[in-house]
Amino acid sequence: MSSAAVKVGICGLGTVGSGTFNVLQRNADLIRARAQSAVDVVHVGARRDHPDCDLEGVQVSRDIFAVAQDPEIDVLVELIGGTTVARELVELALRNGKHVVTANKALIAEFGNELFALAEANQVVIRYEAAVAGGIPIIKALREGLSGNRIEWLAGIINGTGNFILSEMRDKGRDFADVLAEAQALGYAEADPTFDVEGIDAAHKLVILASLAFGMPLRFSSVYTEGITRLTPQDVEYAEELGYRIKHLGVAKCNGAGVELRVHPTLIPEQRLLANVNGVKNAVLVEGDAVGPTLYYGAGAGAEPTASAVVADIVDLAREISVGQACRVPALGVASACLAEVPIVPMADVVTPWYLRMVAEDKPGVLSQIASIFSEQGISIEALIQKAPAEGETRVPLIVLTNSAAQGRMEKAVSAIESLESISSEIARIRVEVLDG
Amino acid sequence: MSSAAVKVGICGLGTVGSGTFNVLQRNADLIRARAQSAVDVVHVGARRDHPDCDLEGVQVSRDIFAVAQDPEIDVLVELIGGTTVARELVELALRNGKHVVTANKALIAEFGNELFALAEANQVVIRYEAAVAGGIPIIKALREGLSGNRIEWLAGIINGTGNFILSEMRDKGRDFADVLAEAQALGYAEADPTFDVEGIDAAHKLVILASLAFGMPLRFSSVYTEGITRLTPQDVEYAEELGYRIKHLGVAKCNGAGVELRVHPTLIPEQRLLANVNGVKNAVLVEGDAVGPTLYYGAGAGAEPTASAVVADIVDLAREISVGQACRVPALGVASACLAEVPIVPMADVVTPWYLRMVAEDKPGVLSQIASIFSEQGISIEALIQKAPAEGETRVPLIVLTNSAAQGRMEKAVSAIESLESISSEIARIRVEVLDG
Ligand SMILES: NC(=O)c1ccc[n+]([C@@H]2O[C@H](COP(=O)([O-])OP(=O)(O)OC[C@H]3O[C@@H](n4cnc5c(N)ncnc54)[C@H](OP(=O)(O)O)[C@@H]3O)[C@@H](O)[C@H]2O)c1
Ligand SMILES: NC(=O)c1ccc[n+]([C@@H]2O[C@H](COP(=O)([O-])OP(=O)(O)OC[C@H]3O[C@@H](n4cnc5c(N)ncnc54)[C@H](OP(=O)(O)O)[C@@H]3O)[C@@H](O)[C@H]2O)c1
Repeated sequence: MSSAAVKVGICGLGTVGSGTFNVLQRNADLIRARAQSAVDVVHVGARRDHPDCDLEGVQVSRDIFAVAQDPEIDVLVELIGGTTVARELVELALRNGKHVVTANKALIAEFGNELFALAEANQVVIRYEAAVAGGIPIIKALREGLSGNRIEWLAGIINGTGNFILSEMRDKGRDFADVLAEAQALGYAEADPTFDVEGIDAAHKLVILASLAFGMPLRFSSVYTEGITRLTPQDVEYAEELGYRIKHLGVAKCNGAGVELRVHPTLIPEQRLLANVNGVKNAVLVEGDAVGPTLYYGAGAGAEPTASAVVADIVDLAREISVGQACRVPALGVASACLAEVPIVPMADVVTPWYLRMVAEDKPGVLSQIASIFSEQGISIEALIQKAPAEGETRVPLIVLTNSAAQGRMEKAVSAIESLESISSEIARIRVEVLDG
Repeated sequence: MSSAAVKVGICGLGTVGSGTFNVLQRNADLIRARAQSAVDVVHVGARRDHPDCDLEGVQVSRDIFAVAQDPEIDVLVELIGGTTVARELVELALRNGKHVVTANKALIAEFGNELFALAEANQVVIRYEAAVAGGIPIIKALREGLSGNRIEWLAGIINGTGNFILSEMRDKGRDFADVLAEAQALGYAEADPTFDVEGIDAAHKLVILASLAFGMPLRFSSVYTEGITRLTPQDVEYAEELGYRIKHLGVAKCNGAGVELRVHPTLIPEQRLLANVNGVKNAVLVEGDAVGPTLYYGAGAGAEPTASAVVADIVDLAREISVGQACRVPALGVASACLAEVPIVPMADVVTPWYLRMVAEDKPGVLSQIASIFSEQGISIEALIQKAPAEGETRVPLIVLTNSAAQGRMEKAVSAIESLESISSEIARIRVEVLDG
C-alpha cells in the first residue's frame, strides 16, 4: 500500500512555517502511517533560519523561488503571507506543476479565482484549510463533510484578536483602546492592528467560507465590513443586561434575493454556544438544509494550530497523490464550470433585529416621540432600558432593542430620532443575530 | 471533468433510509456539481415502501440481497441496522466489489475489524460517517482534518437520547424514570431504551472514535460502560451548586500506560462548551498535540441529519471513483499494517476527580472520620457541602468533591466510609472531567 515519499518544499519560516516544519518532523511516523507514504520536507525557502527549527539534512534556499523551481518537490507550501511575492511564488509553483498548500487568506480571498483556474489548467490543486479559522477543519467540513446539504447560512467568530479584545472588554469592563494596547504587548495583536480590528481579516475569511457554502466565485470586494473600534464598555454591559453578548461575526446568508456577506459586531443571545466562545478561540456555525446547525470550534491562530491545518492539507494531497490524481475535490467545492454568480444583497435590504443606544433628555414625551418614529418605519420595539439619570444630570442613556428591520428603514428611523431636540448624541447601532438554527 | 454517474443502491427504507433517499433526490443538482458526477439511486431494497419517498423510476426489491448482487451498482448503502442480516448484506456487497456506506455503529464497533479487512481484500471501502454523532462530520475531522496531530484525548456527548434525558432532569428537576417515559412518548427514545440509557450505543461510538484517534483496532469489549439510570435529581442539583453540569460522556485518553476507554456520567465545569450542549444534540471535544482542543457540535440523530453524513460519504466516494481508486483514506485512519494494539488502562487505575453523595448522621466527629479515611488513601477534599437536616431529621446529605484519585483508591475509601456507623446509605459516585484542553 505504501508508495514513494511525497516531497514537500516550505517557503517562509516564520510563525506558521516553523510550526509546520516542526509538526511534520515530530509526527513524521504517524503521518507516514496515515498518508500511506512518507512526507519529506526536502527544501526550505527562507531569508534566515528559525531558532526553533533543526534544518539539518534539508536543503535551504535564501531565494524562495528556487523552491518553486526545484524539480524534486511535489508540494509547495506558501507561508510568507501578503499578495505580492506570495502570489508570484504560487503562480510559478502551479506553472511548474506543483500542488500548493497555503495559509494565506488575503491571497485566496483576493486572487483565488485566478489562482484556482491556473491550478486547474496545470492539473494541480491549491489547498488552503489554514486560511480560515486556523486549526479548525472548517473548509473540509463545508467542502466534504456537509456536501449533501444546501447551506442556508453560516456565522463565525473568525478573528481571534478581535474576539480576545471583546472578551477582555466584557470580563474587565475595559475600553477598546486599552485592551488593544495590552493585546499588542502580549503579541496577540499585530503592531498594525488594522486588518484585525477593522474586520478586513474576517472579511477575507468570510468570503472564502461563503464561496464554499454557496458555490460562487470569490467576491472579496462585495463584503460589508465593520470593525470593533467603536464599541464601548457600555454597549457590552447593556447587551449583557438584555441577555446578550457582543461578538464580531462574519455572516453569510442565502435567501431568495441573493447572498448577504457581512462582517460586523453582533449581539447574540447569551445561551448560544457562539456567545460563549471566548479569548483567541474561533468558531463557525453552519446551517444546512439536511443536517440543521453544526458548529466547529478551536484555535484560530498560532504556530502549531495553524500548522495542524497546513499538515492536514499536505496529508490529504499525499493520500491522493499515492492513489493517482489529486483533483478529487474542486477548489470551491463545486466543479469550476458550475460556479455561479449570486447577487449580493445590498446592506439597505439586510434585515436583522437592532440594538440602539442614545442619550436622551429625561423628560416626558421623549419615549413616545421615539416610539412613533419607529412605528412610522414599521419597526417594533422589543425591549427598552432607560437608565436613571446621574446625580445632577438631566440626560439619561436609553437602550432600545427592536424587532427585525431592514437597515434602510432603520437608518431613516435613526436619522429622524437623531434630529429630535431631546436626543443629544449620535445613536450607536449594533445588529442582533438570533442564530436559532 | 464530469464522468459517468455513480450508481447507488439503498437497503433499508426506515428513518435514515428514507432521509437519505430524499436528500439525494432533493439536492441532486447540487450533489452532481459537488461530486463532479451524477449520483443516481438505481435500486432500493425494502420490505415495504416508505410514505415519504417517491420511488418512481427506481427499481425496488423486497429482498435486500438482490441489491448487493445488482451488477449495476457501485455503492451499497446499508441502513437496516443490527449485526446479523446487516453483516451478511455488507459482506456480500464487499465480495461483489461494491463500496459500502453505513450508519450502523453496532456493526462497525463489533465487526469492523473483519469487515475492513474484507473490504481491503476486495479493493473497495466502507464509509461510516453517520455511525458516530449523526450529521457531525467527526469521522472526517479525526481521519483527515486532524491528520497531522497526535490525538491526546477526546470526550463526547454521543447519545442524543441520554443527553435529552439529562437536560430535562436539570431543567425541570424531574426523575430519570419520569423523563424517560416522556422521551419514549415523544419518540426520542426507543421502546427498549437499554442501548441508549445503559451507554451501549455510546460505547459503540466511542470505540470507533478511539480507534480513529489512536490508530488501534476496534476493541468494543474493552469499553467500560456505565449508564445514566442511577442519576438522581439531587445529583443534578448538587452538581449545579458546585458549578458543574452532569453529562453522559464517552472518554478516550491516551497516556504512557495505554488507552482509557470509558462511558459514564460525568461532572463538567459549567463554563465549558460541552456542559452547554443540551437536548438531543451531540458534541465531541478532541485534543490534538498541534491544534489543541477542537469541538464539533450538531444533531446526533434524526432522519435528515443522519442522511447528511450518509450522503457526504456517498459524495466522497463519487469524487474518488470519478478520479480513479477510492482507497485514498484507510478505514481507521492509518494503513491497516500500521494499526497497533494499545493496552487498555484498567478502570482501577483511571484517575479523575470525584463527586460523592452520602447520607450521614448530623453529629460531631463524622466529618473528621471521613476526612481521615480520604487522607489514608492520599485523596484530598476539594469541596464539601453539608445540607441542613430536614425538620425532625437527624440525617443530612453530604456532598464531597475530591481531587484526582485512581478509582482503586476511591473504592477503598468509599467502602471504608460506607462501613462507618454514622453513614446510612450507599455512596453515590460520579467522575469529574475538567476538560481544560
Ligand atoms: N500567524 C498565524 O497565527 C496565522 C494563522 C492563520 C494564517 N496565517 C497566515 O500564514 C501566513 C504566514 O503568517 P505568519 O504568521 O507565519 O507570518 P510571519 O511570522 O511573519 O512569517 C512570514 C515569513 O515569511 C518570510 N518572508 C516574507 N517575505 C519573504 C520573501 N520575499 N522572501 C523570503 N521570505 C519572506 C518572512 O521572513 P523574514 O523574517 O525574513 O521577513 C517570515 O519568516 C500568512 O499568510 C498569514 O495570514 C497566519
Ligand atoms: N435513527 C437515527 O437517528 C440514526 C442515527 C444514526 C445512525 N442510525 C443507524 O442507522 C441504521 C438505521 O436506523 P433507522 O433509525 O433508520 O432504523 P429504522 O427506522 O428501524 O429502519 C430500518 C429499516 O430497515 C428495514 N429492515 C430491517 N431488517 C430488514 C431485513 N431483514 N430486510 C429488509 N429490510 C429490513 C426495516 O424494514 P421494516 O420496516 O420492514 O422492518 C426498516 O425500514 C441503524 O444502524 C442505526 O443504528 C440511526
